[in-house]
Amino acid sequence: MEAKPCSASLAIKTTHVLPPDTNPYNTLFGGKLMAHLDDIAGIAAVKHANNPVVTASTDSVDFLAPVRVGQYISIEAFVTWTHNTSMEVFIRAITEDIKTGDRKACTTAFMTFVAIDENGKPISVPPVYPENEDEKMLHESAPLRANRREERRLNS
Amino acid sequence: MEAKPCSASLAIKTTHVLPPDTNPYNTLFGGKLMAHLDDIAGIAAVKHANNPVVTASTDSVDFLAPVRVGQYISIEAFVTWTHNTSMEVFIRAITEDIKTGDRKACTTAFMTFVAIDENGKPISVPPVYPENEDEKMLHESAPLRANRREERRLNS
Amino acid sequence: MEAKPCSASLAIKTTHVLPPDTNPYNTLFGGKLMAHLDDIAGIAAVKHANNPVVTASTDSVDFLAPVRVGQYISIEAFVTWTHNTSMEVFIRAITEDIKTGDRKACTTAFMTFVAIDENGKPISVPPVYPENEDEKMLHESAPLRANRREERRLNS
Amino acid sequence: MEAKPCSASLAIKTTHVLPPDTNPYNTLFGGKLMAHLDDIAGIAAVKHANNPVVTASTDSVDFLAPVRVGQYISIEAFVTWTHNTSMEVFIRAITEDIKTGDRKACTTAFMTFVAIDENGKPISVPPVYPENEDEKMLHESAPLRANRREERRLNS
Amino acid sequence: MEAKPCSASLAIKTTHVLPPDTNPYNTLFGGKLMAHLDDIAGIAAVKHANNPVVTASTDSVDFLAPVRVGQYISIEAFVTWTHNTSMEVFIRAITEDIKTGDRKACTTAFMTFVAIDENGKPISVPPVYPENEDEKMLHESAPLRANRREERRLNS
Amino acid sequence: MEAKPCSASLAIKTTHVLPPDTNPYNTLFGGKLMAHLDDIAGIAAVKHANNPVVTASTDSVDFLAPVRVGQYISIEAFVTWTHNTSMEVFIRAITEDIKTGDRKACTTAFMTFVAIDENGKPISVPPVYPENEDEKMLHESAPLRANRREERRLNS
Ligand SMILES: CC(C)(COP(=O)(O)OP(=O)(O)OC[C@H]1O[C@@H](n2cnc3c(N)ncnc32)[C@H](O)[C@@H]1OP(=O)(O)O)[C@@H](O)C(=O)NCCC(=O)NCCS
Ligand SMILES: CC(C)(COP(=O)(O)OP(=O)(O)OC[C@H]1O[C@@H](n2cnc3c(N)ncnc32)[C@H](O)[C@@H]1OP(=O)(O)O)[C@@H](O)C(=O)NCCC(=O)NCCS
Ligand SMILES: CC(C)(COP(=O)(O)OP(=O)(O)OC[C@H]1O[C@@H](n2cnc3c(N)ncnc32)[C@H](O)[C@@H]1OP(=O)(O)O)[C@@H](O)C(=O)NCCC(=O)NCCS
Ligand SMILES: CC(C)(COP(=O)(O)OP(=O)(O)OC[C@H]1O[C@@H](n2cnc3c(N)ncnc32)[C@H](O)[C@@H]1OP(=O)(O)O)[C@@H](O)C(=O)NCCC(=O)NCCS
Repeated sequence: MEAKPCSASLAIKTTHVLPPDTNPYNTLFGGKLMAHLDDIAGIAAVKHANNPVVTASTDSVDFLAPVRVGQYISIEAFVTWTHNTSMEVFIRAITEDIKTGDRKACTTAFMTFVAIDENGKPISVPPVYPENEDEKMLHESAPLRANRREERRLNS
Repeated sequence: MEAKPCSASLAIKTTHVLPPDTNPYNTLFGGKLMAHLDDIAGIAAVKHANNPVVTASTDSVDFLAPVRVGQYISIEAFVTWTHNTSMEVFIRAITEDIKTGDRKACTTAFMTFVAIDENGKPISVPPVYPENEDEKMLHESAPLRANRREERRLNS
Repeated sequence: MEAKPCSASLAIKTTHVLPPDTNPYNTLFGGKLMAHLDDIAGIAAVKHANNPVVTASTDSVDFLAPVRVGQYISIEAFVTWTHNTSMEVFIRAITEDIKTGDRKACTTAFMTFVAIDENGKPISVPPVYPENEDEKMLHESAPLRANRREERRLNS
Repeated sequence: MEAKPCSASLAIKTTHVLPPDTNPYNTLFGGKLMAHLDDIAGIAAVKHANNPVVTASTDSVDFLAPVRVGQYISIEAFVTWTHNTSMEVFIRAITEDIKTGDRKACTTAFMTFVAIDENGKPISVPPVYPENEDEKMLHESAPLRANRREERRLNS
Repeated sequence: MEAKPCSASLAIKTTHVLPPDTNPYNTLFGGKLMAHLDDIAGIAAVKHANNPVVTASTDSVDFLAPVRVGQYISIEAFVTWTHNTSMEVFIRAITEDIKTGDRKACTTAFMTFVAIDENGKPISVPPVYPENEDEKMLHESAPLRANRREERRLNS
Repeated sequence: MEAKPCSASLAIKTTHVLPPDTNPYNTLFGGKLMAHLDDIAGIAAVKHANNPVVTASTDSVDFLAPVRVGQYISIEAFVTWTHNTSMEVFIRAITEDIKTGDRKACTTAFMTFVAIDENGKPISVPPVYPENEDEKMLHESAPLRANRREERRLNS
């Protein structure tokens, strides 16, 4: 399979923060943000694999600041690294203020997806190559994170 | 108020087509697509106005091809033209096939949004200027469309 | 196929305006209203065609007044005119105030639906005939609107 | 307060049966139908009371036949009887088959709503009077049902 | 089929009260509570029957007190009695206050579920036996309630 | 503040896997499972703190097996350890098969919640003590996990 650049899998979603996803204090539930991250990360993985994918795992996620009703969240995701059937996806979420237009880092996450065939069996994915500095940094540090996930799985 | 480029309002959303939004034949309801278009167009308008907005009208929309469960829709919207308190937003929706990665035009639409203050009263928005060819074409043809909307309102 | 009266396709829905469908200023998103209109218009078209239908297009829609949380919207739709496989549906939305019971025009729209068979192929629909004054007026002006839609499509 | 006819409170909703409301066998959950009944019955009660209302109770409900994905449900509700602050609402649900247009009784129910003021305290409602045979029958048998509810509450 | 204890079917759900399920006065719609009750009662019935189930009926339900946004509802359900293909499920809903931790009875209900096979035909369920005092009381009074349901059906 | 046992915060939810939460291959989205985990873990944290809480972070989560439409998921969560304003919550998700009643481990997770006052400022929570073996093991290993989270935050 021919290698594809990270940028070919870039997936973007800007989304409203609406009442059904917020607590009575009008801030977004962490779990709802996770659902958004997984949603857009999964689209990035599908774009790379040209096959359906399932979420194999998520690395730890820190929620740095509350996200309020009436704000927007912009989420960007792309594939940083692949192994055989698995892909690491990097996701960055930013909140935007309506009035000032200020953008503030909300959270970042790494999720691993596995491409599957019609029977749900893992299936190979093309290699990915980084083009710009950010992509390179993430691509190079990926094997280290993959090792840690492997250890984590063996220990659990 | 200082003019802003069309590109400053660009808003993007890639989204799954899921069962609750589809009919029993597994194709997306036209109204649900309209809701997606309005959603992302409204975000573009807010980014330009730096104020809340309401949808004033939508021009006619043709649904060119069914959108099926398991496809993705990518929607892009940006402000093409402004008058005093109103903004015209152009929206383009594209469907993507998982397997082939093929992208197919799904629909385009023009919606008009009005910026409002805390009391729901219309409030001025900055002018917008086009930079590339597409934006220029849309910007220049906008007054014509605005006139037709005006006529339409007077006749109804 | 035997002709059916407009009234045989009449479909009605009264609905709450609830938080998930409203912006942080507690007024209904235009796109959510469009989804309601398409929903009930599609039911009218199915009642006429006795076959599944898809939305082919919506004419332009003006949103005359904000619809607020805590109001009700009453939406009525019926088939005004048919061609071969397509039907024009007229939709009227009215908001009702809880306290005064006052009803206020919210918007009107024309949508076109096409009946489809199991394979998604267009299939003929019965003719429709108007009975009262309103229906007659809408029925007679329908070919004009159909022509405009045709032109619009050729030009795009 | 001036008495109002039953018909003044008539509320109607035709609705799709969609996947999120159905079990894996594609039939509607009983609880989702209850939510639809309560929704439209509450609108009927509000129309009569011109005040917000809360559901005080529902009488027993039998689910006569499954409702399938791809069918439509038509629900009608109106106030049959009032006491001081409470109203009895009768609700009838009918399923419609797309192909044949056949309508089949799905269920009927009686719910009691109480009008409330801004502080959630019960507040008087106008009397209601029946006009046609159906309404008369329901109106006359209502005190009997109200007594049974009263007993039920005292015994529990 | 071997008899199973009531406790084997115990199903529990604690749930947030969120805006989309509440009226503009921030209290839960009665119909939404019914949907929650049916949801968890159906899970209890499935656990007992080890087969899919449908809701055959609900007995009357009184809503004793409003449930507010920001509270939690804890719902518990278990099978109290079975006949041939039908099961009576008892459901108890309790609201919890965040600050004080106080628990308050919200409502109780009896629903009847019928186990079905792949063709939607009723299918036998195992007998159930009570173990503690509460279960015994509910189990012994069940035939009386079943008779009343039978009469109700014959009279309607 | 008086210490409370782990068991006092136990929160349980059994839930259907329904189409809107599943991909076209009928298995649950990982992100939707995360939303369920956060939902029930947050309720456990609130029960312990008797104050509103926000999700501060989630540790890594592995998704061991797909969860299919028509299965049930049982999720249990309780507070294992507290520091000053933060609480570690352990969450275990199990899938249940309708036919066989077999229960299968689906995933486990650790999330950290912080109690907040009306202004969203962190506020102290009572200490927690373990009673049974499982709770003790989790309680004793918690400081180690807390340290790792601290490091993680400093390095990012
Ligand atoms: C969690 C939050 C309130 C912490 O606020 P803060 O100003 O960093 O407060 P502090 O540094 O005093 O930390 C308060 C506690 O949070 C803990 N904490 C902060 N970040 C944490 C993290 N990422 N993981 C675990 N614990 C964390 C601290 O260890 C401290 O615990 P302690 O009081 O028991 O010792 C703040 O980061 C926040 O509001 N985050 C967003 C929460 C949210 O809305 N989540 C959903 C997002 S969609
Ligand atoms: C429930 C249902 C399967 C019963 O089918 P049926 O052809 O009437 O079958 P039977 O007369 O043989 O009755 C089967 C059992 O259901 C019970 N039953 C039927 N209607 C009932 C009712 N309204 N309340 C309580 N039990 C009822 C019978 O007593 C019998 O119980 P038993 O086998 O333990 O003695 C059928 O009425 C049905 O499909 N209803 C719709 C269910 C549904 O989809 N609910 C959600 C609607 S939105
Ligand atoms: C309904 C409610 C307002 C009644 O309040 P209350 O303090 O009991 O008031 P009262 O005893 O004065 O009764 C007021 C009226 O309600 C009626 N009522 C009370 N409980 C009832 C019941 N279970 N069924 C039918 N009517 C009932 C009374 O008969 C009385 O009617 P009337 O004024 O026409 O004679 C109160 O029980 C309540 O708030 N319940 C919760 C409503 C709710 O939120 N429902 C959704 C829950 S998810
Ligand atoms: C992900 C899954 C398909 C892996 O299947 P498996 O039988 O373990 O397959 P293998 O051991 O051959 O692993 C296949 C790949 O997945 C990777 N993988 C498996 N578990 C992983 C984890 N927890 N984190 C990261 N990668 C993981 C392996 O490293 C391997 O990658 P490689 O092919 O690039 O070397 C399987 O665990 C699964 O179906 N999980 C559930 C997925 C899901 O439904 N998620 C949502 C739950 S709500």
